[in-house]
Amino acid sequence: MPATMELIDQYIEDNRDAFQQDLFELLKIPSVSTDSRHKNDMQLAAAWVADQFRAIQFQTEIVPTPGHPIVYAQSPKIDGAPTVLVYGHYDVQPPDPLDEWLSPPFEPTVRDGSVYARGATDDKGQMLTHIKSAQAWINAGKTLPIQIKYLIEGEEEVGSSNLDGFLNENLDRLDCDIAVISDTSQFGPGKPAITYGLKGIVYFEVFLRGPRQDLHSGTFGGSVANPANAMAKIMGSLVDENGRVTLDGFYDDVLDLTVEEREQFASLDFDEQRFREQIGVSETFGEQGFTTLERRWARPTCDVNGIYSGYQGEGAKTVLPCFAGGKVSCRLVPNQDPDKVRDAMKKHLQANCPPGLDLEVICHHGAPGIVVPLDSPYVSAAASAIEHGFGVAPVFIREGGSIPVVTAFKELLGVDTLLLGWGLDDDNTHSPNEKFSLGDFHRGIKASAHLWNEIGNI
Amino acid sequence: MPATMELIDQYIEDNRDAFQQDLFELLKIPSVSTDSRHKNDMQLAAAWVADQFRAIQFQTEIVPTPGHPIVYAQSPKIDGAPTVLVYGHYDVQPPDPLDEWLSPPFEPTVRDGSVYARGATDDKGQMLTHIKSAQAWINAGKTLPIQIKYLIEGEEEVGSSNLDGFLNENLDRLDCDIAVISDTSQFGPGKPAITYGLKGIVYFEVFLRGPRQDLHSGTFGGSVANPANAMAKIMGSLVDENGRVTLDGFYDDVLDLTVEEREQFASLDFDEQRFREQIGVSETFGEQGFTTLERRWARPTCDVNGIYSGYQGEGAKTVLPCFAGGKVSCRLVPNQDPDKVRDAMKKHLQANCPPGLDLEVICHHGAPGIVVPLDSPYVSAAASAIEHGFGVAPVFIREGGSIPVVTAFKELLGVDTLLLGWGLDDDNTHSPNEKFSLGDFHRGIKASAHLWNEIGNI
Repeated sequence: MPATMELIDQYIEDNRDAFQQDLFELLKIPSVSTDSRHKNDMQLAAAWVADQFRAIQFQTEIVPTPGHPIVYAQSPKIDGAPTVLVYGHYDVQPPDPLDEWLSPPFEPTVRDGSVYARGATDDKGQMLTHIKSAQAWINAGKTLPIQIKYLIEGEEEVGSSNLDGFLNENLDRLDCDIAVISDTSQFGPGKPAITYGLKGIVYFEVFLRGPRQDLHSGTFGGSVANPANAMAKIMGSLVDENGRVTLDGFYDDVLDLTVEEREQFASLDFDEQRFREQIGVSETFGEQGFTTLERRWARPTCDVNGIYSGYQGEGAKTVLPCFAGGKVSCRLVPNQDPDKVRDAMKKHLQANCPPGLDLEVICHHGAPGIVVPLDSPYVSAAASAIEHGFGVAPVFIREGGSIPVVTAFKELLGVDTLLLGWGLDDDNTHSPNEKFSLGDFHRGIKASAHLWNEIGNI
Repeated sequence: MPATMELIDQYIEDNRDAFQQDLFELLKIPSVSTDSRHKNDMQLAAAWVADQFRAIQFQTEIVPTPGHPIVYAQSPKIDGAPTVLVYGHYDVQPPDPLDEWLSPPFEPTVRDGSVYARGATDDKGQMLTHIKSAQAWINAGKTLPIQIKYLIEGEEEVGSSNLDGFLNENLDRLDCDIAVISDTSQFGPGKPAITYGLKGIVYFEVFLRGPRQDLHSGTFGGSVANPANAMAKIMGSLVDENGRVTLDGFYDDVLDLTVEEREQFASLDFDEQRFREQIGVSETFGEQGFTTLERRWARPTCDVNGIYSGYQGEGAKTVLPCFAGGKVSCRLVPNQDPDKVRDAMKKHLQANCPPGLDLEVICHHGAPGIVVPLDSPYVSAAASAIEHGFGVAPVFIREGGSIPVVTAFKELLGVDTLLLGWGLDDDNTHSPNEKFSLGDFHRGIKASAHLWNEIGNI
């Protein structure tokens, strides 16, 4: 290891208590973005974050938005070296239900090596690792080998509604080569993870309108199309008995898993039985020919998210409903085109609408699936850094969900994102007794400090 | 026409005003069975009906039940002649919404030849025709050629929950050859109808339970069976694109329409366009190869009456629901066996339930379809009587709904029912401004008086 990194590692080791105290300070600020009573706390949290950057002379700005402010900071440009954009958020979920917390949500308390507080893992603790790592470089008397830009927002938990606006207005300022976010999880304890793929999504609301009002199913049944039958038929035909989505051309552009990826997933010792117990099902079910992890991470899906028509109360009512509503979404993988899937869905809906019914379709947000190529030098840099920080090589995982900011970075800034997970999936994110392992906090700082070095060497 | 009937016709003609006054008296009693504030009015209405029978020395009883009383009366047994059981009900629907009535619901008011009041057609006015006709016979000094038994209940609008008990406890007393009910409609103005067929029904509630709680559709979608998708697939597969029910063996026992029936239906000049406008659909839809009337009256059907799962609110929510519920019923025609259809449905549901979901099925009430043979002498008698009363031959129609009392008469007493409709389908049954044509009231009395004569001649 070069002398620089030894120095920095030592600095990080020597300052564990100070870093931890800083984390606790931030956790004490109840920056609940959804609750207007905490508007002032949001300002305090933003100012606290900004002060972290000012303490190391980064160019720093608290940018007002129609909602809560964005903290933006950057270190000097290093000629010939890459620029990294770090994203994080200082806002947190509401702590309710309060009476389920073992210690108050905004009084950070250490138990069994973890700090318990709202925001501990999501995202104050994870986000702070990338600030503390930069402080370590500077305070150890070293020059960062790359430029780092920080975008720390205060509205992640309420839909980031002002983020795209900020991105669009600051495309030049945000110019970078790669983005870094730590707001995900390890694959398991001691298995830090690089999430290199996310699914995209297309979401539809479907409305079927038939007779003017609900009809007597005896007097009229069988003589007019029943919106409930029709909605069921339409929604029921989207996935076949083999778990395959039936939309025309749905799989045409799907980027298949490589042999290496399937081997990597298989090597993860995913505990199928624990998974079933966790969610409470006796059997898993999905696209034939794929494992549970492959289905969750890398295969496109179609789920009915809601369906409603007619009588929902107790017992029997012999009604022929005049209306049916449905919500359905497809999760997409690279290289599926959201617009193409959207068209196929619309065609499917129209083709299956029986005579006499009016069909209305509302298309909600769409985003493509994303993968960061595993042979990218940034992925290798992150892997090395994690090995330095955690003492083990990371595992490479994908995620079935979408992270809108990753899509935005790809679409607006043209960059991939390294999703480096320091959290654990039992950290109680969004729930009472949220926690973050202090060991992982410090390992995360060390990994982050090494990441700047590794990227500088690319 | 024999002299007897001329005399009776004359009596009916001479007593139009008196009959009408009696009708108005009954209509003034707010006998709303569902509303406990009208408990006393129910007693008053029952007593009023009983007095009608006592006035002509019929053996009369007001039978208490756990709910509202049943009025039972009978004329003397005529040896060698049939016995008829007349069913009607003295209770009415609530009049709400009150402010939509043009005249108060319990102040009978004549406009355009119709009396407007709650219960005018359903069923006080229609029921009374069969009492007034007997009074005409007696008061004209004639002896009824048959025995008539009257069962007038006070709980028809609240589910007739004490009727089966009464029937079972009085099987001997209710012994008869044919039942008569006027609680249906003419096919159109001036088209009095004999409803000779009713559909049966089987009704199911279906529950699908999957994961312990709702899941994130990105993280878990595609790896466990989704109860919403599954419920849609199950419900959507019950009727095919040709409007045919797909249950195994569903059509095996169906009593096909005869050539004569199809010709009779076709001769009714059913106004397809008016039908579409009435219910507000641009096109009808049903089983291929059958007309709208055939589908409504004589073909078995399967309608989803309710379906619900997941998110039903505004906009998008990416949830994989843990539960789905559905309600579905089949309308049956003779000679389908409700038990056989029930078994076929259960098999269908089980066969289509994907792995990892728990299926629960609740089977509600079942009843077979019913037809009175068109060549029955009672049908001929009713047809002649109607021609006497209305001056036109009746049309023969069927009904898509079930009338539980008809099923009960068939199953418990072993008799068919003549459903003789004096009402009109725009009489606003159950709605504000319920009405009954006074002309049809008097024609109904005359037809009923002739019915006793015609049945006596069988």
